[in-house]
Amino acid sequence: MGTIGELGEFGLIGRLTRGLPRGPQVELGPGDDAAVVAAPDGRVVATADLLAEGRHFRRDWSGPYDIGRKAAAQNLADVVAMGARPTALLVGLAVPTGLETAWAEELYRGLSDECALTGASIVGGDVVAAERITIAVTALGDLAGRPPLLRSGARPGDLVAVRGDLGLSSAGLALLLDGASAPAELIEAHRRPRPPYAAGEEARRAGATALLDVSDGLLQDLGHIAAASGVRVDVRSRQVPVPRILGSAPDALRHALTGGEDHSFAGTFPRDADLPPSWTVIGTVTEEAPRAPGVTVDGRPHGPGGWDHFRR
Amino acid sequence: MGTIGELGEFGLIGRLTRGLPRGPQVELGPGDDAAVVAAPDGRVVATADLLAEGRHFRRDWSGPYDIGRKAAAQNLADVVAMGARPTALLVGLAVPTGLETAWAEELYRGLSDECALTGASIVGGDVVAAERITIAVTALGDLAGRPPLLRSGARPGDLVAVRGDLGLSSAGLALLLDGASAPAELIEAHRRPRPPYAAGEEARRAGATALLDVSDGLLQDLGHIAAASGVRVDVRSRQVPVPRILGSAPDALRHALTGGEDHSFAGTFPRDADLPPSWTVIGTVTEEAPRAPGVTVDGRPHGPGGWDHFRR
Repeated sequence: MGTIGELGEFGLIGRLTRGLPRGPQVELGPGDDAAVVAAPDGRVVATADLLAEGRHFRRDWSGPYDIGRKAAAQNLADVVAMGARPTALLVGLAVPTGLETAWAEELYRGLSDECALTGASIVGGDVVAAERITIAVTALGDLAGRPPLLRSGARPGDLVAVRGDLGLSSAGLALLLDGASAPAELIEAHRRPRPPYAAGEEARRAGATALLDVSDGLLQDLGHIAAASGVRVDVRSRQVPVPRILGSAPDALRHALTGGEDHSFAGTFPRDADLPPSWTVIGTVTEEAPRAPGVTVDGRPHGPGGWDHFRR
Repeated sequence: MGTIGELGEFGLIGRLTRGLPRGPQVELGPGDDAAVVAAPDGRVVATADLLAEGRHFRRDWSGPYDIGRKAAAQNLADVVAMGARPTALLVGLAVPTGLETAWAEELYRGLSDECALTGASIVGGDVVAAERITIAVTALGDLAGRPPLLRSGARPGDLVAVRGDLGLSSAGLALLLDGASAPAELIEAHRRPRPPYAAGEEARRAGATALLDVSDGLLQDLGHIAAASGVRVDVRSRQVPVPRILGSAPDALRHALTGGEDHSFAGTFPRDADLPPSWTVIGTVTEEAPRAPGVTVDGRPHGPGGWDHFRR
C-alpha cells in the first residue's frame, strides 16, 4: 500500500474521499474549495473538536478504525445534544509522512461508519504532514425548525435524567493504563464510545429544558447546565445507573459520576415529563444558592473530578 | 499572564471566546455543545483546513497575531471562492501547556480581525494540549440564493483572469529561508496574506464560470480547474501580473506562477465578460486534448511546481 509521503497530499485526499457515501443533504462533496450542504432549517448547528495522539488516543491502544469511530462520535453527539440532526462532517488530518496509507483509510472508514448511524456524510477536509497525528473534526446539523436544546434552560423543580452508559470508557482507560486487557467490554467502550443518538429526539419529545452530551464526566457536565441555567443540580447517587459490569469495582460509582468520553446524554425535564424507559431520573434541579456548588451529590459537595485536558 | 497549563482548558476557552464580536448571523456563539449560525440560503458552504507548526508557520518567523490572520484568511478565501459570504469560523487549537496564554489570545485577536474583514464571526471551537501547535479552522458561508461558483464550470473559449497578488508569499518565504529580513513587504506578505475578498462578488457579477483561490500556486490551481472542467488552460506568461517588487528577482515569474499561499483568486469568464479593472486576463480556455497537460504556459507544458505539503 505504501506510505502517505509516497502518495502525496492530493493523492491521499483523493483516495480517502473517493467513494464516500453521500446523503441527499450533500449538494457538493469534497473536491472544490468548499462543500455545500443543505440547511433546510435556515440555520446550521456547528461544532468542532480536536483529537491529539497521545492525549485522546494511543496507536498502541486503538486501531485507526476505532479512532475514526470515536472522533466522529464525539462531534456527532454534540450536534445531537443540541436537538439537531447531524448532516455533515469535515475532517482535518495531520499525519506523519511515514504513516501507512492504509492507516488513514481505516480511520476514514471508521469516521464514515459512525456518520452512517446518524445520516451524516463526510463532505470535506484537509490533510497535512505533521510529526504526530491530530484529527480535527467539525460536525454540522439541522434543527428542522425547532429551537436548539441549550444548557441554559434548566429550571428549579425540573428532573435530571440520563440516557446511555456512564463510566465504561473511564473504567476501560484505567484498565489500559494498568496494562490489563479484560474485561474486553470496558476496553472496547474506551476505544469506541457508543452514543445513543436517539437521545436527542427522545429528549425533545419529552420536553427537555436542557441537554448535553457527557464528554467530561457526569458531574462536571451537569455543572455546565447548573452554571448556564443559574440553578443547582442535586444527584441522588443511588439512582445513578452504574453499569452492571462496573458493579464489583470499588471505583464503580466514581467512574459513573466522573468518567468522561462515553458520550451519553444528560438533560433536565419538567417534573411531569413522560420520559421513555431508556432514560433514568437521577436527581432534581433546585434554586441556585449563593456561594454553594452548582452540583451536589446526595446534597453534599463533591470533590474535583471530570476531565480537563490540561490539568489531568 | 501565565501559561495555558495554569489556566486549564475551560479557563482558556473562556478567556479566548469572551468578548468576541458576534454578527447578527450568530444565533448562538461559543459555550454550548455547538453553535447555531444563520444559513438563510437553506444551504451552508463549509471548508476546513489544518495549519501545523513547523509546516505552515514557524513561531520564530511569525507572531501569533499574524498566524491567526493567516489561518482565518486561508479558510475565508475558500468560502469566497465559492461565491459565498463567510458567516462563521470554528477554531480548534492544539497547544503545549507551557505556552503563554497571551500567545493564544493574540492568535485569537488575529483570527477575529481577519473575520471582521468579511463579516464572519468566531462561533466555537476546542482547545487541547499537544506537544506542537496545530490550528484547525472551519469556515462557513452563505450563498444568498445563488449557485456556488465551482471549479468545474470552465468552457472552451473562456478567458482566464486573476485578482490579487501572485508570488509575494512565496518570495517572502524564500527570503526567510535565506535568513533575510528585507524587503519587508515580501516577508509581511508571507506572514499575513491579504486575500482580496471582494473578488468573489466581482467574479459573480462578471459571470464567472469557475473560481478558486490560489493556495497551492497559480499553475497548480488552474490545473484543478482544467481537471474539474475537462478543459485545457493556457497561460500567457507576458500577461501574468508579476508584482513590481519581484521585478528584479530572477525568479519573479516562477514565484508568480507557482508560489502558493497568497490566496488571490483565479477564475474563468465568458469571452465577452465585463471584468472590473482589478482583474487581469492571463490566458484562455481551450478544448482538452488527450494525454496533453491540463495547463500550459505559452502553449508549452510546464515543470512541476505548486505546493504539496507532503512532497515539498
